[in-house]
Amino acid sequence: MSLITANEALEIILKSSETFRVEEVNFLKSNGRILKEDIVADRDFPPFNRVSMDGIAISSEAFNNGQRKFKIEGIQPAGSEQLTMQNPLNCIEAMTGAILPNNTDAVIQYELLTIEDGFATINLEAVKELQNVHLKGLDRKQGAILIPKNTLISAAEIGVFATVGKSTVMVARQPKVMVISTGNELVGVSETPEDYQIRRSNVFTLVSLLEKINIKAETAHITDDKDKLLSKINSFLNDFDVLLFSGAVSKGKFDFIPEVLDELGVKKLFHKVKQRPGKPFWFGKKGNKTIFAFPGNPVSTFASCLKYFYPWYYKSIGINFENKNKAILAEDYFFKPGLTYFLQVKITKEEGEILATPITGRGSADLVNLVDSDAFLELPDDRTNFTKGEVFPLITYR
Amino acid sequence: MSLITANEALEIILKSSETFRVEEVNFLKSNGRILKEDIVADRDFPPFNRVSMDGIAISSEAFNNGQRKFKIEGIQPAGSEQLTMQNPLNCIEAMTGAILPNNTDAVIQYELLTIEDGFATINLEAVKELQNVHLKGLDRKQGAILIPKNTLISAAEIGVFATVGKSTVMVARQPKVMVISTGNELVGVSETPEDYQIRRSNVFTLVSLLEKINIKAETAHITDDKDKLLSKINSFLNDFDVLLFSGAVSKGKFDFIPEVLDELGVKKLFHKVKQRPGKPFWFGKKGNKTIFAFPGNPVSTFASCLKYFYPWYYKSIGINFENKNKAILAEDYFFKPGLTYFLQVKITKEEGEILATPITGRGSADLVNLVDSDAFLELPDDRTNFTKGEVFPLITYR
Repeated sequence: MSLITANEALEIILKSSETFRVEEVNFLKSNGRILKEDIVADRDFPPFNRVSMDGIAISSEAFNNGQRKFKIEGIQPAGSEQLTMQNPLNCIEAMTGAILPNNTDAVIQYELLTIEDGFATINLEAVKELQNVHLKGLDRKQGAILIPKNTLISAAEIGVFATVGKSTVMVARQPKVMVISTGNELVGVSETPEDYQIRRSNVFTLVSLLEKINIKAETAHITDDKDKLLSKINSFLNDFDVLLFSGAVSKGKFDFIPEVLDELGVKKLFHKVKQRPGKPFWFGKKGNKTIFAFPGNPVSTFASCLKYFYPWYYKSIGINFENKNKAILAEDYFFKPGLTYFLQVKITKEEGEILATPITGRGSADLVNLVDSDAFLELPDDRTNFTKGEVFPLITYR
Repeated sequence: MSLITANEALEIILKSSETFRVEEVNFLKSNGRILKEDIVADRDFPPFNRVSMDGIAISSEAFNNGQRKFKIEGIQPAGSEQLTMQNPLNCIEAMTGAILPNNTDAVIQYELLTIEDGFATINLEAVKELQNVHLKGLDRKQGAILIPKNTLISAAEIGVFATVGKSTVMVARQPKVMVISTGNELVGVSETPEDYQIRRSNVFTLVSLLEKINIKAETAHITDDKDKLLSKINSFLNDFDVLLFSGAVSKGKFDFIPEVLDELGVKKLFHKVKQRPGKPFWFGKKGNKTIFAFPGNPVSTFASCLKYFYPWYYKSIGINFENKNKAILAEDYFFKPGLTYFLQVKITKEEGEILATPITGRGSADLVNLVDSDAFLELPDDRTNFTKGEVFPLITYR
């Protein structure tokens, strides 16, 4: 059987992306979401000729005519209506953030002044017109697009939303995701397992990985019983946009997921990928519902979510995702099987370079090894020797 | 006046870190928090001799005595009590994740078998003892520390919490932070400003920057009225661990913050730093309360929070913070003033290298420039020429 490669699998997944609707959220709740409208300057930036140093506002003409001592006519605080200087030979004290008073065109900061008896003397050789004045519209003009649609929102964008008065913004709706574990060997976190049992963990790592991209997923556990699987998965297919499975996709007698999904009318787009970990990965669609059935080993589930679900999500919400993260292999490495290998690595940053040191654990069941490493280095399937200093794609999770 | 340098300021701030108490949270709510207990293996990992491929379990001795065809005596599913093989010349079908049956010591995967009429024939030349068996305790021994105290929790750690049955974990309590804007020029996000007014934005960028490190901050606005400032700040000093101010720390007539804090018994540790932006930065302590009074220009507030508050926070919750992020300057740059310069840059990653391209905006009031860039490159204060290819510390915010 010729399996598809990891990149062929990714291509199929990206072609199966969905378009979600948009929703309006409070601007302060939009951190980490994808903006779905252009944010436009509601007025010029700055909106007025803005004083940018605390000091005095003068007419530069007076200064350039030789005058150095100016009578203080008033104070222009930030947030007050614009004053008009009555006498062009006077000055007005003006504060950072204030509107520049009428009949003045330059600001001299306090550091360069001597103030005595209501007069300010300027200790400076030259004054330029508009000195220490942040000119109306200099940064951006009214109507300019400040933030384009499809931007990933961070603190910087939230500041701009506030500035232009966008107390709510349109963002991509998040997909509704159900994370499902199967397997009779699994017990709850608060239970004490029998000798032959272990606790559920993959659904929680998946939930945490989704939380990182602001998806609040739900979780369910179904025992290895075909009828139960059929009825529960059928109802999840109705209620959710995406189902993520962990386990029951390999050759085991109780690996019912592929046949159950088939019976429920989910179209298989591929099963099994030339990769380690995560070879038995199954992927399919039913209408606009998307089903990722990851292998059940902890490292397989973890790596598959990062390699496949994340890009699918980004594409679906409107980001042209391309993983440009790469790292430099810090030691020689040998891997023979002819599969794409997601090598667990610890990242160090040195002088602007990203170095990846292999942290070889005990295989895909070794969950703890994920704690000791930071990322996966994606080694291609067409080679066996990987040399220190070579650069490979990097998938980080911290 | 000789100002302190940016790194002297940071040193003073780090020396002023606090120790917060710990709190117990549900393990699923611990993402992004700092672990305050060692997480210990509650039993061996794996907890039993675990079958790692779907197939048949046999006695390798029988195989090595020349036998190739084995009668199937039963099935050992994952999650079932351990079976005992009655006849050492038989085999038991065994599923991934199952406990290895008694009297068997090797597993042969289905891919290498022919199964017919209740017999499995092995198409393989050699079988090793413990083949496809993940040995009890091989990954980690009971009692081993799986995750040490003071680890920043991510999805990988949450998976381990689940596995060892830690449904709640002890984490560092987050500081209670109040973010305060001052300035009569500021109006609310939903209001329409007069010509000489602007909307509040810095408090919201600060709240978003804190949200990134899982601190839910509160916000307040106080007008430039000394009595109001005194009474409100006094009450905030009682109720919060940290106050973050934006504005009113420079030389303006209404820059009351330093004197108000002084009157309230806050000890100034420094005022003004040899840096751009953010020169008028004021920092002080009152008992175990910590006060960061950042300059009010948007870029100053933003950069100062990243450069100073983040490290203070990390130190306070128990992480030995050292910014090892560096980037390679992608173009020559010139900066004369003899201050540490937080140059706004756009990051690109190429072949494992982090490149920083300057995005020079219109100065510290140009909030929109934060949208166009990703990070600050910290250029030292003792030089004016910075050459393409040189490496400098990087402070990222995306």
